[in-house]
Amino acid sequence: MALDPVFTPINQPRAPELPAHLKLPHIPPTADAMLEYEVAQRLAPEGLPEHALGRLETLVLQLARIQHGSPLPFDLLVFDSPQLLVFAADHGIADEGMSALEQGMTVEHVLQLLMGVAPVNALADAHGFDLTVVDAGVATHINPPEASRTRAPLLLRKIGYGTRNLMLGPAMSTTQAVSALHAGMDVVRHLPGNVVALGDVGVANMVSASLLLSRLCGVPIADACVRDDFQMPGLDDSQHLQRIEKLSAAASRHRKALGPFDALAALGGFEIAMMVGAMLQAASERRVVIVDGYVAGAAALVARGLCPSVADYLVYAHRTAETGHRLMLIHLQAQPLLDMGLRLNQGTGAMLAWPLLLAAQSLLER
Amino acid sequence: MALDPVFTPINQPRAPELPAHLKLPHIPPTADAMLEYEVAQRLAPEGLPEHALGRLETLVLQLARIQHGSPLPFDLLVFDSPQLLVFAADHGIADEGMSALEQGMTVEHVLQLLMGVAPVNALADAHGFDLTVVDAGVATHINPPEASRTRAPLLLRKIGYGTRNLMLGPAMSTTQAVSALHAGMDVVRHLPGNVVALGDVGVANMVSASLLLSRLCGVPIADACVRDDFQMPGLDDSQHLQRIEKLSAAASRHRKALGPFDALAALGGFEIAMMVGAMLQAASERRVVIVDGYVAGAAALVARGLCPSVADYLVYAHRTAETGHRLMLIHLQAQPLLDMGLRLNQGTGAMLAWPLLLAAQSLLER
Repeated sequence: MALDPVFTPINQPRAPELPAHLKLPHIPPTADAMLEYEVAQRLAPEGLPEHALGRLETLVLQLARIQHGSPLPFDLLVFDSPQLLVFAADHGIADEGMSALEQGMTVEHVLQLLMGVAPVNALADAHGFDLTVVDAGVATHINPPEASRTRAPLLLRKIGYGTRNLMLGPAMSTTQAVSALHAGMDVVRHLPGNVVALGDVGVANMVSASLLLSRLCGVPIADACVRDDFQMPGLDDSQHLQRIEKLSAAASRHRKALGPFDALAALGGFEIAMMVGAMLQAASERRVVIVDGYVAGAAALVARGLCPSVADYLVYAHRTAETGHRLMLIHLQAQPLLDMGLRLNQGTGAMLAWPLLLAAQSLLER
Repeated sequence: MALDPVFTPINQPRAPELPAHLKLPHIPPTADAMLEYEVAQRLAPEGLPEHALGRLETLVLQLARIQHGSPLPFDLLVFDSPQLLVFAADHGIADEGMSALEQGMTVEHVLQLLMGVAPVNALADAHGFDLTVVDAGVATHINPPEASRTRAPLLLRKIGYGTRNLMLGPAMSTTQAVSALHAGMDVVRHLPGNVVALGDVGVANMVSASLLLSRLCGVPIADACVRDDFQMPGLDDSQHLQRIEKLSAAASRHRKALGPFDALAALGGFEIAMMVGAMLQAASERRVVIVDGYVAGAAALVARGLCPSVADYLVYAHRTAETGHRLMLIHLQAQPLLDMGLRLNQGTGAMLAWPLLLAAQSLLER
């Protein structure tokens, strides 16, 4: 939930820095005091303390605002053909030994998703979500499993074979970043339904998330990348220090990339850029957007920088075990629905949180 | 989830203090290292970080231990006819102005539950829970609504017309407390299924919860009863101080009630005692017990004092907005599933958390 949709860090001139060929959709803000009053009245029966439903009440209000900008009278919440999009991409920074996982694990994870053996598959099935895996830029060609073993479709929207090592130059060119944003918008445009959950797969993508957090929120690198990073466990002091130094050098190399778009191109990844596009498009169509973990959160950070009103449509599913994610949610002024110490992206947390949206729906049906 | 089932505060002689006519069931502990190993293997596919599923993993392990003490091989989790029991009772301490609500509100809340208009009704319906309201000791006779408007059955197990004002004497006599425990056991014994969720209704019952927390965990009264108590909002400094003084006087009056049973009788309530009985009986039948909020948590505290192994069967649904509840969960060494700032008991949090148990189930079905 976004308490304050206007989140503009210092030193971010927004309008001038966007490339001319980037087309962003219009996103209407959703605030509506009349509606909120009516919904709050319907939620709580007599004799209950004020705000008895706590976080669930704010969730109901947000969902009602998304689905019923106007006109009153307010009707029920309707969720139709919910979609789970998992964007997969590789990151050149993985060459620097930034993850305990080999880069090849990205493909492995994608194949697990396609064959339906990842934890998120079971949850998506249970909740009736259609899962689509999008190859946003995995470093190798993905040989999909044979049709009889395939449980989820793979969408080929590869922008490149992994991003560039951002120690050496911007992760993406401006053209690549724009293409990725447009591709994300395009993917959502062709999906049915009014709910989109966004997850990600990509070795070392938490490095990009941390760098974006640091750049767009002014969090020191050393705070954004802590020792307990679950893609890189078991570092000793000197290894950890070396890692922080490397990332600080990278940040300093891209010190001019201050705005959300430039930061995304310099420090982000293909899957992050596509998630940004997907969020913006989904919000412009008044869909509910469920944001999964740390990396999807970084996409939300960029999306808010580009179009502040997107915040009204974002439901943050959970707080991961990652310390950087905690800081990020504070900066996003977002209160996630769950806090279960997950060390897993892929949309798992979004699927775990989904029943709370259904609960919000059934509370209004009484 | 209970990390350490053996929780025995200092100065609690357990065995000698129980009344002779109190019959407690035998509860087998569930620890099983072999089973845990097998389940952990099945949970996470290759290439995921350790404990990727965080709190969900410990939930799966707990549920597996409850349902499959032995023998191996381990099979799926099965949930059958889940039941929601809401125990209602009144508290004599309400006479001291310990709640912003009139005592009559207990009946109002019970009627809302019976007519199906409380938030928890919608959630129980959505999740296929059978809701039963138990009159454990409401201060007045309950005129149930006419049959055509009744959505949930009312079970009459009234121990008395509200407890005594515990400023003046023990809330319950030993006989009443034993009867209430036995009634709670009896109610569960006649229910089908292998899942029981426990909620409560009762004006001023949070006072009892706070006093039990203070007595059984050694938490100072002033910490257990904070200003933001949601049954008593808007107190000024002197009113708050007066309240703490009253409760301290009550605690001091019952200073000899040190053990869990004596503390329950002196400081508890009929619905709390019945929940204790229900927990013990359900655990002895290897049912999963979902503990709702602060007051149900106080019952868990007493139940653990009486039979430490009951802890293995208790799933704590959520952390309420109440500060005392936070302290209580720390003392119970319990990590609840949700933290949504609810200011509502009645089993609402238990129903919100239920889909996470279903998620645990579907994760093993892959």
